[in-house]
Amino acid sequence: MEYSLGELAARLGVRLVGAAECRVSGVGSLDQAAPGQLAFLASAHYRKHLAATRASVVVLAEDMLAECPVNALVADNPHLAYARAARLLNPSPEVRGGVHPRAVVDPAAAVDPTSWIGPGAVVEAGARIAAGAFVGPNCVVGADAVVGEDSRLEANVTLCHGVELGRRVRLHPGAVVGSDGFGLANDGGVWERVPQLGSVRIGDDAEVGANTTVDRGALQDTVIGRGVKLDNLIQIGHNVEIGDHSALAACVGIAGSTRVGRHCTLGGGVGLAGHLEFADNVHFSGMSLVTRSFQEPGYYSGNLPATDNQSWRKTIARLRRLDDLARRLSVLENRLSAYEKARPLDGADFE
Amino acid sequence: MEYSLGELAARLGVRLVGAAECRVSGVGSLDQAAPGQLAFLASAHYRKHLAATRASVVVLAEDMLAECPVNALVADNPHLAYARAARLLNPSPEVRGGVHPRAVVDPAAAVDPTSWIGPGAVVEAGARIAAGAFVGPNCVVGADAVVGEDSRLEANVTLCHGVELGRRVRLHPGAVVGSDGFGLANDGGVWERVPQLGSVRIGDDAEVGANTTVDRGALQDTVIGRGVKLDNLIQIGHNVEIGDHSALAACVGIAGSTRVGRHCTLGGGVGLAGHLEFADNVHFSGMSLVTRSFQEPGYYSGNLPATDNQSWRKTIARLRRLDDLARRLSVLENRLSAYEKARPLDGADFE
Amino acid sequence: MEYSLGELAARLGVRLVGAAECRVSGVGSLDQAAPGQLAFLASAHYRKHLAATRASVVVLAEDMLAECPVNALVADNPHLAYARAARLLNPSPEVRGGVHPRAVVDPAAAVDPTSWIGPGAVVEAGARIAAGAFVGPNCVVGADAVVGEDSRLEANVTLCHGVELGRRVRLHPGAVVGSDGFGLANDGGVWERVPQLGSVRIGDDAEVGANTTVDRGALQDTVIGRGVKLDNLIQIGHNVEIGDHSALAACVGIAGSTRVGRHCTLGGGVGLAGHLEFADNVHFSGMSLVTRSFQEPGYYSGNLPATDNQSWRKTIARLRRLDDLARRLSVLENRLSAYEKARPLDGADFE
Repeated sequence: MEYSLGELAARLGVRLVGAAECRVSGVGSLDQAAPGQLAFLASAHYRKHLAATRASVVVLAEDMLAECPVNALVADNPHLAYARAARLLNPSPEVRGGVHPRAVVDPAAAVDPTSWIGPGAVVEAGARIAAGAFVGPNCVVGADAVVGEDSRLEANVTLCHGVELGRRVRLHPGAVVGSDGFGLANDGGVWERVPQLGSVRIGDDAEVGANTTVDRGALQDTVIGRGVKLDNLIQIGHNVEIGDHSALAACVGIAGSTRVGRHCTLGGGVGLAGHLEFADNVHFSGMSLVTRSFQEPGYYSGNLPATDNQSWRKTIARLRRLDDLARRLSVLENRLSAYEKARPLDGADFE
Repeated sequence: MEYSLGELAARLGVRLVGAAECRVSGVGSLDQAAPGQLAFLASAHYRKHLAATRASVVVLAEDMLAECPVNALVADNPHLAYARAARLLNPSPEVRGGVHPRAVVDPAAAVDPTSWIGPGAVVEAGARIAAGAFVGPNCVVGADAVVGEDSRLEANVTLCHGVELGRRVRLHPGAVVGSDGFGLANDGGVWERVPQLGSVRIGDDAEVGANTTVDRGALQDTVIGRGVKLDNLIQIGHNVEIGDHSALAACVGIAGSTRVGRHCTLGGGVGLAGHLEFADNVHFSGMSLVTRSFQEPGYYSGNLPATDNQSWRKTIARLRRLDDLARRLSVLENRLSAYEKARPLDGADFE
Repeated sequence: MEYSLGELAARLGVRLVGAAECRVSGVGSLDQAAPGQLAFLASAHYRKHLAATRASVVVLAEDMLAECPVNALVADNPHLAYARAARLLNPSPEVRGGVHPRAVVDPAAAVDPTSWIGPGAVVEAGARIAAGAFVGPNCVVGADAVVGEDSRLEANVTLCHGVELGRRVRLHPGAVVGSDGFGLANDGGVWERVPQLGSVRIGDDAEVGANTTVDRGALQDTVIGRGVKLDNLIQIGHNVEIGDHSALAACVGIAGSTRVGRHCTLGGGVGLAGHLEFADNVHFSGMSLVTRSFQEPGYYSGNLPATDNQSWRKTIARLRRLDDLARRLSVLENRLSAYEKARPLDGADFE
């Protein structure tokens, strides 16, 4: 798609400094964009590339404008304005309605004629596929599952029976939503499955990353809120609830029945124990393990960044000998106290 | 399914306190169940909901009976009794025998007529699908693989060549069993694959979670014992052996040739290094890294729970300066010793 | 396949000590191999099995030769020589050219007649499948993707649009290559997707493990170098670059734009934060979190191995009280200094 800078500025609601009639037809990074492309500057880290950019226009913040050698689109949030510009210049292909002859759609499924069911996709009885939805190649939509308007199941996705997706939800390849939760009862050492009778509900505009798994609830539903973004290879246990507009980086694991608030962020590899509750605006740094609830908004952490092996071994050895250190300190305190008592510094024994 | 409480008590082998003729047709949680539903109380945490429950009957332990306002099924293990009641009230649909016309079954595969091969499923030459087994949509059963009686491959499962499943095994969506182990030999900096010639054997009643991967052995087989429960997104390396009735929570990773005992539990995100050996009844808490064998039953841990960022930064800073702390302590010990030596407290220098 | 030891020695370029005409037709482990099989000894750990081996020949290093009771193939790198012997004795089946009638190949895809497209596989428009390539059952090859010569997509693999694989690349079951990176812009608390317009390029001889995910780049491509080995359940973020011949164990996660050098190794569960840069020959031990760049080759670590719960609780408690320990030490230093000042050991107050 091609736009003039004037059109772009109007569409994005940002200020253009430069030639309104100049046209761009794509995007590029600040240091690699060619003429005819739009670039952006959202981090001081890349400022060094601004002076030499060959982009036709740069989306940037007011305080960078003076340094910009080319046309500029001045935005309060350059990253956001760039995201929207990039979408305008690279529109997603329209979903064409229809069912591929190699799809398998149960006669008792309700498939909107404006939705697309791709080759190898399987749609079971009672499932409903709403207008504009896209069910990609080799996806499976279980019995009575609901795919909301304009939602997308990219490829090889499994949506289990009864799961409900809102509108504009995206499930990336290999995602599994609604498989049985890990509910086990123990009979003298032998585990028995507890039937998982809840389902999963996913709100509008949420995304589920590649090969991420979201378990169905034991009794009530597992709930992924509106606008929630789940990255790849995440595990969401049964009856978990994720508040609206929270974002979870890859490799996160959340055990059963834990409730994450709204607008939270979890760094990659974070693990949340089960049955915890978190306030809105709680943020965990990567690879932290969380074993208790936090009711206050804020930043929480529990990880140990790596260092060279030699220093690390020393740190671990010291850590293992902390008891020894504490004991020696106590001994010293007692010795000094005894000394101070016998020979007080008030000079009494010199009288 | 509907049962009278008398029938349920008899089937579950538990004591009914209340109306034997009262009928229930489903389950619900203690605080949300409606009349006609069965609830359970297995944890003191939910005791607060007992007095106001609207369930027709509650499965609970003897010591909660006095507080129960409705019919009660008194069980030694209420969670287990509940699991069985829930299964009775919500029986799994029968597997209907047959091969979907859109399945691809090699003529040299042996498929029992009482098993089901779903749409898009591929069953390769030499594979054997036993009576009552279920091969779900878009699953792949590799050459010479064996699916035991009443086992289930839910959807999009990959069973690689030669893998053997026992009876009543369940593979959840996206699970991969029998892919090549990570066997590499190094030729002057370049990695070469070592052929992985073993297979995987999975015992009766085991389960493999969604998108979990179990590698085939290098020479001997990888072995998952009877009744083992693997949650989602777990990695089992080549030649690992998991003893009967162990349960592994999500996101666990086990490196090659490690042997886990029977009746062990691994918390979410636990990592076991390779070539280790563990006794029966060994338990690791979540996100622990295990780098040595433990031959004694017991509880083991190695994780650091998260706290607020400020406290955490202090802790890390102190940890990094432990050497300094230890050094200062030594200096102090020496100083005090020198002092004590020069001015002994036995009063010698006062004579 | 069957070989005489003389043929094997010649093919492998190693020295035979024993009967050149002796024939072997398979491999086995040192302690379980039967006559007619080849075994290897590459680690002192297994030396104990050498004396009693029933293998017809053992691949080993010169310094083990004296203890070998059977024929020996003496190699500088026994593990490597074994890998090659095992491949000779167990050759991979030839790829037969053709398109399975139940595959779905877009007319606008270019499929070499010597490649194989399996049942249920979907190959979209513009995709190119080179000579000798293997696209397994239920794999999806997106529009304009390129599968290089002799590359293999095992089963249920998703290759997204435009992704380019070199020659002899292997994607194990469930792998997803080229799904959207986790690029988000925030609009007053609501996340918006940033279009991911780059792709993924994977070099010759690289491997991607089962259910591993590799994200496409935001603007430039994500790059997996030649000979890189990715184990199972790994997450590679957008615009990551992995240098040639690096090997990553299972459950690793790498955040966006991080560059790993050549010949690096990452232990299982390692997490690399985003926008970092690493030298060649950098090695991280398992489950380390890495939050800064390391420009020097070497070994780095940041994990805490598990121990028994009781010791661990003490360690954590001490760790949490390090501030207290440090404070007490300071107090003690001050007290002793005050004492030394008031009563100096130079004996001044005794004059």
